[in-house]
Amino acid sequence: VRVTLLAGGVGGARFALGLLDVVGAAAVTIVGNVGDDVELLGLHVSPDLDTCLYTLAGVVHPEQGWGVEGDTREALGVVGRLGGADWFILGDRDIGLHLVRTERLRRGEPLSRVMADVAARMGVGARLLPATDDRLRTRVLTDDGELGFQEWFVGRRAAPPVRRLRFAGTPGARPAPGVLQAIADADRVVLAPSNPFISLDPILAVDGVRAAVQARRADVVAVSPLIGPRAVKGPLGEMLDALGHERSPLGVARYLAPLAGRFVLDQADAGHADRIRALGVEPVTAAALMRDAAARRRLAEAALT
Amino acid sequence: VRVTLLAGGVGGARFALGLLDVVGAAAVTIVGNVGDDVELLGLHVSPDLDTCLYTLAGVVHPEQGWGVEGDTREALGVVGRLGGADWFILGDRDIGLHLVRTERLRRGEPLSRVMADVAARMGVGARLLPATDDRLRTRVLTDDGELGFQEWFVGRRAAPPVRRLRFAGTPGARPAPGVLQAIADADRVVLAPSNPFISLDPILAVDGVRAAVQARRADVVAVSPLIGPRAVKGPLGEMLDALGHERSPLGVARYLAPLAGRFVLDQADAGHADRIRALGVEPVTAAALMRDAAARRRLAEAALT
Repeated sequence: VRVTLLAGGVGGARFALGLLDVVGAAAVTIVGNVGDDVELLGLHVSPDLDTCLYTLAGVVHPEQGWGVEGDTREALGVVGRLGGADWFILGDRDIGLHLVRTERLRRGEPLSRVMADVAARMGVGARLLPATDDRLRTRVLTDDGELGFQEWFVGRRAAPPVRRLRFAGTPGARPAPGVLQAIADADRVVLAPSNPFISLDPILAVDGVRAAVQARRADVVAVSPLIGPRAVKGPLGEMLDALGHERSPLGVARYLAPLAGRFVLDQADAGHADRIRALGVEPVTAAALMRDAAARRRLAEAALT
Repeated sequence: VRVTLLAGGVGGARFALGLLDVVGAAAVTIVGNVGDDVELLGLHVSPDLDTCLYTLAGVVHPEQGWGVEGDTREALGVVGRLGGADWFILGDRDIGLHLVRTERLRRGEPLSRVMADVAARMGVGARLLPATDDRLRTRVLTDDGELGFQEWFVGRRAAPPVRRLRFAGTPGARPAPGVLQAIADADRVVLAPSNPFISLDPILAVDGVRAAVQARRADVVAVSPLIGPRAVKGPLGEMLDALGHERSPLGVARYLAPLAGRFVLDQADAGHADRIRALGVEPVTAAALMRDAAARRRLAEAALT
């Protein structure tokens, strides 16, 4: 069974681990978010892609969910002491990857080719595709003005309420080679338990991707990033409020209903099942908290049933 | 007494330490070599300037003479594993400096301003000026073709004999602000015990610098980088041979005679004194090996007598 996963950061990466465990790495294509990419100190940083990469390579910091376990911050310490921008954490091993990626991008290689090569060298068996090789950046409109995504998320700790999101570079950002085909050819398309507004929407905003997913709606399953009113990680709860959606798995299911024919939600949220079914979406209840490998595996199995 | 020192890498930096000890940091201007600067992984690396910087900031690796003591190489390890160029050693703290410098240069700041700010933040009291803010690169003509300086020095371990050196960007490279004035106004101009071909010549190749030094010849003192036929560090001995000069302090004194009215050589080389005097250069004998702070201080005192 071939699976294509649309994924953002930590939740998506952890779900991908379970998926690989169930169907094998060779059967999985991950289409990753690049809307949170950022240029820092001249480096091209791809936080969501790297979270997937580090997670699948088995080197991710286990508690943080991002960054390399045991990484040091010597370079960033010097940057700070010399008056450079050190508000975004870059580990030394991180920087090694960023240096290689940035140099290759500057020479004109597409991001998808660089990431494929890096993933292979790190022993990642699944295919990890950026949604686009073109420049696409999530911009956050707040009462303090429009901010770059990382400027809002890290720089402002996601505090200013989000009034609107836009994806600079869209329309016009073309899907990276293989993206549309991976969606069209998969036996199952999975929307990972990632924030729909800042992880999935920037993927779906790439030319042709939303239509490609919609065309597969019967085989598309979304996995709830919320348990009850709370996101396992990240600012989704507050964003649902701020953007006028119900702060519950039902709110997310309603938002994703045009794309996904099935919706996996936590057992604790089974009370929402009937109302989800009323949206024309088949609810699937499972244990949604991915606390260990067994839990990740069971959640992936539930998504694929 | 105000002193301006023309200096390359390790020997020049160590000599500078002694000089600061004798006359105080505020009295010293160092005009540093940028001919060995190199772009690596998108980073602007200034090995000679950084050796001076780290030495004067008291953080240099004491045995190596370059790099930061206790620095790690995590980023470079990743670069190598991902197939990037890792033939030139970049420590993690090094990279922090390179990131800050490169970003500021890309924004259009001149190197001299970046280095002045970095030096101040690192507590360096002496003025450290790059010879030029323009692009100047030492190119090494060998039987294997013309190589970039670091490509020859590090990449090829300085093995291919040097047929000729040229300084790409000259003529036309303008002295950085303050360089000509520092040479004109100093009470004493010192040519550090640095390789004359690859450390001093690229400084002297900057528009107006050679003439400015020649105009001060009576107050210019050169310090021998050789003791007997051997360079304390680096490939000078082989280069003297390859370029057709005598491999001795006399060979260096003859090469520098148009610029320096005095020449400090090791006591062991006192036998050359008469022939140096015959060049119109006043010989000064001293203990030239800078094995500790006291030795550095005595050598600086000898240069200033």
